[in-house]
Amino acid sequence: MSVYLHDIPLKEAQSRLDQTLAAVDLSGLLGVEDIALDENAVGRVLAKTVWAKISSPNYHAAGMDGYAIRSSETAGATLAKPIVLTCGKENTTLQAIYIDTGDPLPDWADTVIPIENVEPLSFDRRVSDDPRQPSAIRIRESATPWHHVRHVGEDLVASQLILPAGHTLRPVDLAAIAAGGHSRLAVARQPRVAIIPTGSELKPIGQPIEKGQIIEFNAIMLAGQVDQWGGLAFRYPIITDDIETIRNRILAVANDYDLILLNAGSSAGAEDYSARVIDSVGQVFVHGVAVRPGHPVILGMVNQGLTGDKLIKPVPIIGVPGYPVSAALTAEIFVEPLLSRWLGRPSTEPISVTAVLTRKVTSPAGDDDYLRVMLGQVGERLLATPLPRGAGLISSLMKADGISVIPSGTQGLPAGEKVEVRLYCSPTELSRTIMAIGSHDLTLDLLAQSLAGYRRKLVSANVGSLGGLLALKRHEAHLAGSHLLDPASGEYNISYIHQYLPEVSIVVVMLVKRDQGLLVQPGNPKAILSLADLARPDITFINRQRGAGTRVLLDYLLEKIAIPIAIVNGYNQEEYTHLAVAAAIASGRADTGLGIAAAAQALGLDFIPLYQEPYHLVIPQEQYEGNLLAPLLQILTELDFRKAVSAMPGYDVSQMGEVVATISANEI
Amino acid sequence: MSVYLHDIPLKEAQSRLDQTLAAVDLSGLLGVEDIALDENAVGRVLAKTVWAKISSPNYHAAGMDGYAIRSSETAGATLAKPIVLTCGKENTTLQAIYIDTGDPLPDWADTVIPIENVEPLSFDRRVSDDPRQPSAIRIRESATPWHHVRHVGEDLVASQLILPAGHTLRPVDLAAIAAGGHSRLAVARQPRVAIIPTGSELKPIGQPIEKGQIIEFNAIMLAGQVDQWGGLAFRYPIITDDIETIRNRILAVANDYDLILLNAGSSAGAEDYSARVIDSVGQVFVHGVAVRPGHPVILGMVNQGLTGDKLIKPVPIIGVPGYPVSAALTAEIFVEPLLSRWLGRPSTEPISVTAVLTRKVTSPAGDDDYLRVMLGQVGERLLATPLPRGAGLISSLMKADGISVIPSGTQGLPAGEKVEVRLYCSPTELSRTIMAIGSHDLTLDLLAQSLAGYRRKLVSANVGSLGGLLALKRHEAHLAGSHLLDPASGEYNISYIHQYLPEVSIVVVMLVKRDQGLLVQPGNPKAILSLADLARPDITFINRQRGAGTRVLLDYLLEKIAIPIAIVNGYNQEEYTHLAVAAAIASGRADTGLGIAAAAQALGLDFIPLYQEPYHLVIPQEQYEGNLLAPLLQILTELDFRKAVSAMPGYDVSQMGEVVATISANEI
Repeated sequence: MSVYLHDIPLKEAQSRLDQTLAAVDLSGLLGVEDIALDENAVGRVLAKTVWAKISSPNYHAAGMDGYAIRSSETAGATLAKPIVLTCGKENTTLQAIYIDTGDPLPDWADTVIPIENVEPLSFDRRVSDDPRQPSAIRIRESATPWHHVRHVGEDLVASQLILPAGHTLRPVDLAAIAAGGHSRLAVARQPRVAIIPTGSELKPIGQPIEKGQIIEFNAIMLAGQVDQWGGLAFRYPIITDDIETIRNRILAVANDYDLILLNAGSSAGAEDYSARVIDSVGQVFVHGVAVRPGHPVILGMVNQGLTGDKLIKPVPIIGVPGYPVSAALTAEIFVEPLLSRWLGRPSTEPISVTAVLTRKVTSPAGDDDYLRVMLGQVGERLLATPLPRGAGLISSLMKADGISVIPSGTQGLPAGEKVEVRLYCSPTELSRTIMAIGSHDLTLDLLAQSLAGYRRKLVSANVGSLGGLLALKRHEAHLAGSHLLDPASGEYNISYIHQYLPEVSIVVVMLVKRDQGLLVQPGNPKAILSLADLARPDITFINRQRGAGTRVLLDYLLEKIAIPIAIVNGYNQEEYTHLAVAAAIASGRADTGLGIAAAAQALGLDFIPLYQEPYHLVIPQEQYEGNLLAPLLQILTELDFRKAVSAMPGYDVSQMGEVVATISANEI
Repeated sequence: MSVYLHDIPLKEAQSRLDQTLAAVDLSGLLGVEDIALDENAVGRVLAKTVWAKISSPNYHAAGMDGYAIRSSETAGATLAKPIVLTCGKENTTLQAIYIDTGDPLPDWADTVIPIENVEPLSFDRRVSDDPRQPSAIRIRESATPWHHVRHVGEDLVASQLILPAGHTLRPVDLAAIAAGGHSRLAVARQPRVAIIPTGSELKPIGQPIEKGQIIEFNAIMLAGQVDQWGGLAFRYPIITDDIETIRNRILAVANDYDLILLNAGSSAGAEDYSARVIDSVGQVFVHGVAVRPGHPVILGMVNQGLTGDKLIKPVPIIGVPGYPVSAALTAEIFVEPLLSRWLGRPSTEPISVTAVLTRKVTSPAGDDDYLRVMLGQVGERLLATPLPRGAGLISSLMKADGISVIPSGTQGLPAGEKVEVRLYCSPTELSRTIMAIGSHDLTLDLLAQSLAGYRRKLVSANVGSLGGLLALKRHEAHLAGSHLLDPASGEYNISYIHQYLPEVSIVVVMLVKRDQGLLVQPGNPKAILSLADLARPDITFINRQRGAGTRVLLDYLLEKIAIPIAIVNGYNQEEYTHLAVAAAIASGRADTGLGIAAAAQALGLDFIPLYQEPYHLVIPQEQYEGNLLAPLLQILTELDFRKAVSAMPGYDVSQMGEVVATISANEI
């Protein structure tokens, strides 16, 4: 089999994996472990079916506090013709004895009469101060046999099925199994998984990194996944990209594990050694799977290269791609089903929901494409907003509420298309998400933080002010952050709302006033003083995307000083947030950009203030009055929140939360 | 506050708890712990919002394998007019340098041109055998700045929000937090919970029990729940029902815990000391909550009785009822929200579904009634079958797919009513449940065991053969086990199907033939020889319920030998399964009953065979042909399964799986 990357369909890769495992007898349980019921059994998987060894209860027990009696001795008792039964301690004349709930029924008794249905007689305080132990009781109703008795086997009958093999144990299961007379359990042995990070550029978490170095965090993520799926993950230290080093590490650990995850070097680049190494200690049987992200995956088997008889069985090895999203998805696609099989339980089946795509997506036709989406319920529709696609963007996976798989053969899907989404969150959370689509402001991050305490998730998609209004028009957002200047009137947002949202009643709420200005490198090395400097040939600008309020402002200001956009270097380089603009300048990609003071401070840049502008929340009336947004509107009135916002530079919170305008829908 | 039980509404109990906690400053986080990102952080709850400390990537990195170049030097390149760039190692004339994906972009470069879009020139094998390092490259297309570059902050920009406080960490979150430059985390301190089992009748798991003794399994269940909800549970050994002993144990542990669960003794019986003990070391502020099961719950606070200054803060204590279902529900109702609050996260919100009740339920009007149900999808309807109600039936909670709360003020609900059910399982499992309603046979347990391996859950409700046919008629089951003898024809089931299911096309499949006979105590001490002995006054019989095939058989056989049912002692004592009949005999409740040989063997009884009968699966045609039942029909053909069944006594598997009859619906 070639060690060079050649994508094959996922199904074929899985079937090669199945065949290879079957050939070496690794298709089922790895082993059975005998554990104590009371030692970390929750989450373990039953390896054998559990049958009740004893009945529960295992004696006839009183179901109420009352008197154990013979039902036959109460025959004919009525209100008018009561019957008296001799009471007391066990002796031959005894007809009734007091017992507490749970106490065993005496052999001679066949029913319990509750204490409240009995009249105690001849109660003698000198003998007992407990009125439940009189010398006789009077009964005015005949008793039914076996009433108020928990009889043997009422809960479990010896020999009955309690739980089948393959069941994952919950706390209540342990109780039931204990009730059935077991104190130990046969559970599936947990697969041991070695995680080996490789890469000369990798630095351990917690160490400072320099240019060209990357923090190694895939191992901790993979380990978390493995543990969550019932395996036992062991992380090894980072090793350098060196064939012999990698080979030696694999051979050193292979004998102690059931699975090895080698991360990364799984692609076909100059320093991608994984395939060659695996080929040298066994076989590569898949190199490349037609899934995005995650296609440069390797499936192989370690089964040679050890001296003597140390390696007693072949060990599967997976070359996991290095990009974090690829790594996480590779684990979901290949590792989870493998662990489930080895644990003898069904593979985890995520909950699926149907949602409507808010944006067109393109997709490579030859691949199964794993699209990360954010979900939010707006009105009747559940909406799926695609997240950025890069395999390197771990934030996109962290933010994802779910994954939609666009199957190979599909080149893309239009906005409005219905897609199936496998949830990463609980479906109960979906109705608690506030979709804020529109302009970006750092205050939204603070709002998100505060809302988390109110059981709300604020998801902000930064598509610019105009994009936000259009999202409201399409009923794809609960609110839009907007700061669109109308150059004609000098007013913000109102004319745009009239133009784009004539059919919606809108409430415009002030979030903040904020300073817009030029962000420049610390110390302003290029001596940028005003927008006029954008005309200089030695200055590179970084712009915001079309439709962003900041870009509208830029165009307006440039026109006022008669600078044609064609001469601004970098005018076509676009970013979607203030922070991204700041990052571009901090990293030297650009010399300056228009943005807010808080973004400059966040990345240690200098700031040249130019303009104060209001940043509004544009909210459909219906949402404004609804439950979902109530905590958000509440937070805007809270002193703590205002303090937190005004602690950032360039923010004026004096009008925060005020209703700026209420605009009624045009009746049609 | 009185220590005597007086039920108050749940809301009032919760609000008293809230007030009491607020008064002693226990309403929020118990503390913040600083932990390493890579040490068991999954599942912990963020105590502080996490902001990115560094950007990710933190340098401009190649997004593809290719050449770092200055985009300006490619201006004007076309297919016909290519441009050549000098390549090689870093020096002043350098125009292009090869870099791998992830390598840092040199300071002078602003874009990457992928290797596949480049023609290497003057490649000198004497210098390098890597064709990616030629001395020059030819380019036939102008390059866009910052293309194929992962620029600084593409994933995370320093200072941006990563995750808010209150978020429960998943593996992918750890990766994102590490990418943001963190190696340690501030998480909520886990609440420490002491679980103290009390009860003179309790025996630890694994020790033999005698009459009057109970296996103590609540503690392990409560501990599992606490751990699952993010707390740290500590189980103490069982102590006897003695006021001083309980008091001393509480005082000994109080200082080390955030919460004490005292189980049981929470009711108002003669030996229920919990309320008195708590009153003596602090206060009882709730004793009795109007919920069923679980009403005798105690909420209290330990805050006195310690010597010196050892008790530095008051410790809440919950008197948990002793019945296992009550204990588990008390934990769900009071402990989970408390732990969530102390962890600073929203309380767990179960997924709810709407289902249709298959049976009428009655409910105490004054209580919130927690009804355990099994769920199954039959056709378009999700059906909720109520499970037995007893608080002592841990099996009912183990079997429950969910809980439906019948609110106080409602005295009951009719069959067919829609109810909200809080799921204990994943909604993806609901469509995998086979609802077998009807007669009971031990073979069904074996089937359930085998089906677990096929991702099917077999739920069998034992309502007797006739009840099964009626369930099919109401579309409440996928199949019915039935053995209804038609005395007129001697045939089984067919005439009943014609009578009760005229509008459904049915396939009748043979499960087994089995021996019915009399179950008697070991050694047959009462010398029972035949059904004629049921007329003896010294013999107590235990019967099956009305509609059970076995009862139909009994009535037929009794009539044949002219024994009137009125003279059969215990004729009106009913059980719902063969095993329950066997258990009744084994425990001495009855001398004999009619049932199957396997049940006799299971409980060590003797068996007097009387009759062989077929046990059929009655399956609607539509289900017979559907996906859900396919694995079940498959299993009936498997040798392993037949062997397992015939290993039980009294079973004939020779016709297992054969279609006995196909009955078409009457066209209407």
